[in-house]
Amino acid sequence: MQSPQVSTMSNCEEPKVTTAPHIVKEGLMASGKWVKLEKTTYVDQAGNTRTWETVKRTTRQTNSADGVGIIALLKRTLHKDCVVMVKQFRPPLGCCSLEFPAGLIDEGETAEAAALRELKEETGYKGEVVGVTPVTCLDPGLSNCTTQIILVNINGDDMENINPTQQLEFVEVILVPLDEFQMKIDDLLKKEKIVVDSKVYIFAMGMVQAFFKPRELPVLKQ
Amino acid sequence: MQSPQVSTMSNCEEPKVTTAPHIVKEGLMASGKWVKLEKTTYVDQAGNTRTWETVKRTTRQTNSADGVGIIALLKRTLHKDCVVMVKQFRPPLGCCSLEFPAGLIDEGETAEAAALRELKEETGYKGEVVGVTPVTCLDPGLSNCTTQIILVNINGDDMENINPTQQLEFVEVILVPLDEFQMKIDDLLKKEKIVVDSKVYIFAMGMVQAFFKPRELPVLKQ
Repeated sequence: MQSPQVSTMSNCEEPKVTTAPHIVKEGLMASGKWVKLEKTTYVDQAGNTRTWETVKRTTRQTNSADGVGIIALLKRTLHKDCVVMVKQFRPPLGCCSLEFPAGLIDEGETAEAAALRELKEETGYKGEVVGVTPVTCLDPGLSNCTTQIILVNINGDDMENINPTQQLEFVEVILVPLDEFQMKIDDLLKKEKIVVDSKVYIFAMGMVQAFFKPRELPVLKQ
Repeated sequence: MQSPQVSTMSNCEEPKVTTAPHIVKEGLMASGKWVKLEKTTYVDQAGNTRTWETVKRTTRQTNSADGVGIIALLKRTLHKDCVVMVKQFRPPLGCCSLEFPAGLIDEGETAEAAALRELKEETGYKGEVVGVTPVTCLDPGLSNCTTQIILVNINGDDMENINPTQQLEFVEVILVPLDEFQMKIDDLLKKEKIVVDSKVYIFAMGMVQAFFKPRELPVLKQ
C-alpha cells in the first residue's frame, strides 16, 4: 500500500521510471513569420519514443522569456490603489481581451526594461519595477512560450503620470481598484463581449483566497 | 488636454476609432492532428486590413473552453490546507513543468466534470467543485486557446482521499501549503530545472498582495 505523504507522492508501488525523459528531435512542420509548428520527438519515462505537436514563436531571443506581463499598481493620493489593465482587439480571439499590459522582449533588452517600455507604450504610465518572477510558461501542453511577470508601481502623483500619453492607438486602459478586483472584472464581463486573460482572473482568485481564508487553522474540517 | 479619468481613458484627443475591428478570413497555413496554424485577416479600428498568425487547437468543442485548470485545495484534519500541484515532463518545454492539474474538455463534457475527471486521473483525489471562472484566454496574442479555472475542495479525511491512486504514471503530485505557497514554489525552482506555469506564480502573487497589503488606505503615498 502507498503510504500517505506530506509533500510528494507517486502511486507506483514499484517505480516504473527508468529513463529521464528527453527530446530526441524537433522537426519543422510549418513556419510563418512569427509562429512555427514543430513535431517534437521525445523519449518518455518508460523509454518509449513518442511525438508531440509544439508551437513556438520564431522571435525567441537567447536566454530569456518570450515576453513580459506587467502587474502595474497605480498609487495616487486620495485614490484607492488600482491595477492598470488593457483592453484590445485580439485577432486570435476575434474579439477584445482584458489583460495585464504585456509584450515581447526585444533583442538585447532585459525583462525589466521591456516591462517599462511596454507599460509606457500601452498605457502612457511611467513605472518603477518592484518585483520580477522567474521565467514562467503560458500553455506548456501547447507551446514553449514563456513570460516573466513584472510587478511595477506607478506614482500617480508624478506630473508625467497625471495625464499619461499612450503610444498605441487601439489599446484602451482600464483602471481596476485592487480591493474589489474580481468584482469589477466580473462587472466588465457582464457589460460586453470580452475574454479575460487567465492570469488576470487567477490574480483575482489569489487575492480573494487570501482575503477571505487567511491562514485557516488546521483543525477538523467540516 | 486629456483629463484625468478614474476608470477608463484613451489618449485620443479626437477619437480615431471608426470601425469595430473584426475578422474577415481565417486561412489554414498548416495543420497537425492536434494543433493548426492559421493566417487571420482582420480589419482594425482604423479600417485597415491586416493579418495575424493564429494558433488553434483542432480539438475545440462547441461553446466551451478548450480545457480546464484546477486549483484544488486539500483539506485535512491537523494539516495546513495544501494546493495540489503536478510536475510532469512537457515536450514543448523539453523539461518538467509545475502546474495546476489541467486537461482538455472532452466532447459533451462540462467544465466541472472535466475538472473532477482530470484531478482524479492526474492526482487520484476526488474533489468537489466550489467555484468556476468564466472562459479565460491563455496567450491571446498567439492562440485562441481558452481555459476555465475550476476551484475544487478535497476532503482529505475521506477514506478515498487518504491513499489516492493516480491513473497517469508520469505525473508527480506535489502538495504545497497554501500559507507559504510562493516560498515553497521558489524553493522547488532552486532545487531542480523546472518551469512554473504563469498561472501558478500569479496565484501566489495575488495571495502575497492580499496578505501584505490588505486594503491599504488611500492616503498620501510615499
